[in-house]
Amino acid sequence: MQTLVIYDIPNDRIRNKISERCKDSGLLRIQYSAFIGELNHNRREELLLKLKHTLSENTGNIRIYPLCDKDLRLMKEIAVVESEDDE
Amino acid sequence: MQTLVIYDIPNDRIRNKISERCKDSGLLRIQYSAFIGELNHNRREELLLKLKHTLSENTGNIRIYPLCDKDLRLMKEIAVVESEDDE
Repeated sequence: MQTLVIYDIPNDRIRNKISERCKDSGLLRIQYSAFIGELNHNRREELLLKLKHTLSENTGNIRIYPLCDKDLRLMKEIAVVESEDDE
Repeated sequence: MQTLVIYDIPNDRIRNKISERCKDSGLLRIQYSAFIGELNHNRREELLLKLKHTLSENTGNIRIYPLCDKDLRLMKEIAVVESEDDE
């Protein structure tokens, strides 16, 4: 099942560790603090435990949303990509 | 239907405007750049247009996910709230 992970973590070091854990689980970064990817129930539970362990006692909020196909089809995206002229 | 809005917008002024639009639509802030709340199809389309108009030509990514009850029930949250002693 597609799984969306979003997080809000003030500490840079911890936030980077969380993003590494998401990447290690095969998720794809879709926003600065949001990842998505296919995870079955077990892999999702595994990621939950890893993220819990990584956040530990640090301030933060992490949410893991499984997304069914129907919800995904209804998703709407607004994307404006930085033009290369600005770089 | 519960609707999750997540965004990644570099410009502070535009990002704040986007959060105001979400609040105006009755959504609740759950993370610094994430809102959730009940929106029917029409209200969701309305919000989509408002956010599109607000982002306009500015760099950014906004995603609007409708979430069915089943997906919501499977959502997992890890939350560590800043203790008052630290303030």
